[in-house]
This record gives sequence, structure tokens and C-alpha cells, in this order.
Amino acid sequence: MSGSLAIAGLGPGDEALVTPEVSAALAQATDVVGYIPYVARIAPRDGLVLHASDNRVELDRAALALDLAAQGRRVVVVSSGDPGVFAMASAVFEAVESGPEAWRLLDIRVLPGITAMLAASARAGAPLGHDFCAINLSDNLKPWSLIEKRLRLAAEADFAMAFYNPRSKARPEGFARVLEILRPLCGEDRPMLFARAVTTPDEHLRVVPLGKARPDMADMRTMVILGSSRTRMIARPAGPILYTPRSA
Amino acid sequence: MSGSLAIAGLGPGDEALVTPEVSAALAQATDVVGYIPYVARIAPRDGLVLHASDNRVELDRAALALDLAAQGRRVVVVSSGDPGVFAMASAVFEAVESGPEAWRLLDIRVLPGITAMLAASARAGAPLGHDFCAINLSDNLKPWSLIEKRLRLAAEADFAMAFYNPRSKARPEGFARVLEILRPLCGEDRPMLFARAVTTPDEHLRVVPLGKARPDMADMRTMVILGSSRTRMIARPAGPILYTPRSA
Repeated sequence: MSGSLAIAGLGPGDEALVTPEVSAALAQATDVVGYIPYVARIAPRDGLVLHASDNRVELDRAALALDLAAQGRRVVVVSSGDPGVFAMASAVFEAVESGPEAWRLLDIRVLPGITAMLAASARAGAPLGHDFCAINLSDNLKPWSLIEKRLRLAAEADFAMAFYNPRSKARPEGFARVLEILRPLCGEDRPMLFARAVTTPDEHLRVVPLGKARPDMADMRTMVILGSSRTRMIARPAGPILYTPRSA
Repeated sequence: MSGSLAIAGLGPGDEALVTPEVSAALAQATDVVGYIPYVARIAPRDGLVLHASDNRVELDRAALALDLAAQGRRVVVVSSGDPGVFAMASAVFEAVESGPEAWRLLDIRVLPGITAMLAASARAGAPLGHDFCAINLSDNLKPWSLIEKRLRLAAEADFAMAFYNPRSKARPEGFARVLEILRPLCGEDRPMLFARAVTTPDEHLRVVPLGKARPDMADMRTMVILGSSRTRMIARPAGPILYTPRSA
């Protein structure tokens, strides 16, 4: 039997945002591999082995998945959001590149999902409606100086900015520094969206002017989006809409 | 009866990439509004009115949808990809902001979808696996000088870059200029993905070094992705994988 590996995006949390393509892959899987809270979203069934592992062991997890596929299993690696955006797809391909030749013969597919910034943007309106960038604020795997450089250039380019992994217990000071860098470049009034646990029962959205943004408004479940200079707010009884016009 | 307006993303083309949330909204709609080829994807049924309109009339289309919702209809505006990325959500909110007060009282929701860059990235591997930007290369609604500025700053920031609307009959010279600007900044060897009609029967993927990229490799159905300096190719019998490591 020939094995396969699908790297699948589960979306931001709501099951109604899981694509039929991903659901079909999960229904045919023999093994699901992933970070504990994502594997917890998969319903157990006969014939399916769940392999949950802790955070920060992405390469080990990738190697396990590739090894199982090479043994002929139908493996699905699950990511939240989209697997190609700051998630497991790159980790799997890093493992393939440095791993045994046999792994290059495997049937490997990436199944896209609704990534956090698009779910957060949809809930708030359309703040990413024109040119934007996505920056991972974690400095686990890149130097902090590169993050600062990208922030400055993104502000100069007047991109809307989506920030993944804004804040962790391990480096609480990083996001405070991000706010310090952005304020003089983007101005105190620039709207910033804090979208926590979007599409889950814990969802909480807040839009504040950059000058009023505080580091503790974000945690590891929060997606942060900063508007461009053209991003606008529409006041409504049901709550404001945040959007970037098409001409920005 | 109280009307509603959902601005829904149909994804890149494959029905298996339409979220259950969007399918449910379409199943309950009384009216579907959108650009001709997107409305053509919706199956006709009793009780559903299809309103297809031509390109470049986004504000008229938005006003029609808002007007129908204000009359108490359950309206779905359909976009390809994600409605919040260079698509109909911003046009609807522009209309809301400048329109009658009654439109601000409507139940308006954005239903996210798989945007073209994520579908293209998934097919090729994971070229957007680390920090990246998304730029609309159409100068219909913004000055060309702003596009050039963003290209230069994005290259300096070493973002991977996803280009929407790379080339149209109305401005065939624009994408040639984009390639001219990027070559000296990113180098001749930087990989560039041309992903045409991704997830449809017409899908065609090609990866070429930037120095060999030609304007006629892109048309309006093509998503173009340029790697960062860290983006890598893995040679395989089944075709290369293009990906950006997590440390980029």
C-alpha cells in the first residue's frame, strides 16, 4: 500500500470553516499528527490513531508524520488556520529537504484553510481589503532585528499589517517594543484590531487607536491587525466596521 | 421580515474549498449578487434570484445588494477567493459609509474563503511560510508610483510577495515594469511562481527564476508569488516543492 501525507488547515476554530477537502482527508486518514489542541479537535474513531505532541517540536512531529507515510499510512498533519502561513507546512518541507531520499517520493499535499488574519479581518469588516503584510512577531527562529526592520519598512510602505504570535509568556516585552516602534511611524490614531480566539466561544474583538494599545491586550490566542493610513471606521449601532478602501 | 447581507468567499474554484458556512448562507439566500463568472458557480433553484453584473461596477453591485437587504431580502454577495482580500467586502463597506443611514442598521457579515494566494501557495508547497506581503498590481484605483514604492520596500524587507491582478489587457506593460524593478533588487535566481486558475481544470503551475520570468507568463487568472531570499526548492521526481523556511 502506498502512503500519503496531507498537511491540512483546520481554520480558526469554528467547524463551519473547515473545508470539505480537509474533512474528506480526515475521514480517510489512518493517522492524525499535530499539536495537542489541534488534534483535540479531531473526533476519535476506529482505525484512526491520534498522535498529539507539544509545542516547539515541529520538526520531530514532521519526521513522525513522514515516517508513518513512508510506512504506507494515510497521514494528516493538522494545523490551525492555514498550514502554509506560520504553520506546519514549512516544518514538513524542512524535514523533507534534510531527510532520507525516500521522503521525496511520497505523495505530499497541502490542503489550505482559513488563516487567522482572514477570519479576524472578516469579523471586524475588511481591514486587509488592500495591500497588506503578515509578520510573525515570534523571535524563536529569527533575530529580533529583522522583525524591527520589517516593521519600519512595512510602515513606510503603508501596508496594513497582520501580526501572528504577538505575545508569549517567554517574551512579554517583544510586543511592547512593537507598539513603541509603530506609534511614531503610524500615528496615535491609527486603528488596531485585537481579535482573540476568533470564531470560538471565547471570541473577543476590540479596536483601539494605536496610541491606546497596550501589550496586555494580546496573548498567544490573539491576532493583531494594524490598519494602513487609509483604513477607516464606520460607526454603527451594532458596533463599528473597520475596513480599508480599495483605493489605498 | 428583517433582511441580511453576507459577503461570501467562494474560494479559488474547487467546490471542495467552499466552507460549510458559505454553503449554508447560499442555501438560505433569496438573492445572490456578484460578478458574472462567480454567480455562474451558484446552482439556480426556486426562490433564489441571481443578479450577475460585469466587472468594474463594484459600487453599483454593492448598492444593489444593500438595497435588497434593506427591503428584507437575504442577500449573499459572492466573491472568488476571500471577500476581504482585493474583493467585494471593501466595496460594500465603501457603499455603506457613503450611503443612507438605514444601511448601517443592516445585519452585514463577511464569510471568509480560501484566497488565491493561499491556494496557489498550497499547490506549490509553502512559499508564504514566513513573513510576506500581498500587493494588488492593478493601478485602476491607486497611482502606479505607490505600487513601485511598495515593491521596492517589500524587497528591502525581504518579504515573500504575492501579486494579485498581475496583468490585464488594459495595461499589459505594468507587469513588465514590475519584473524590471524586482530583478536588480531580488536577483535573477529568486524563484517566482506563476499559478494559473488554481484548483480548476485549467490549473497550470510554473516556477521560474526571476531572471527568466516573462510578462506573458501571467494573465488575469494568474496568481504570482515571488519568494524571499530564503525561499528554497526541493527537487523531486513528482515535481519541485517551493517553500520558505520558518526561520526566514
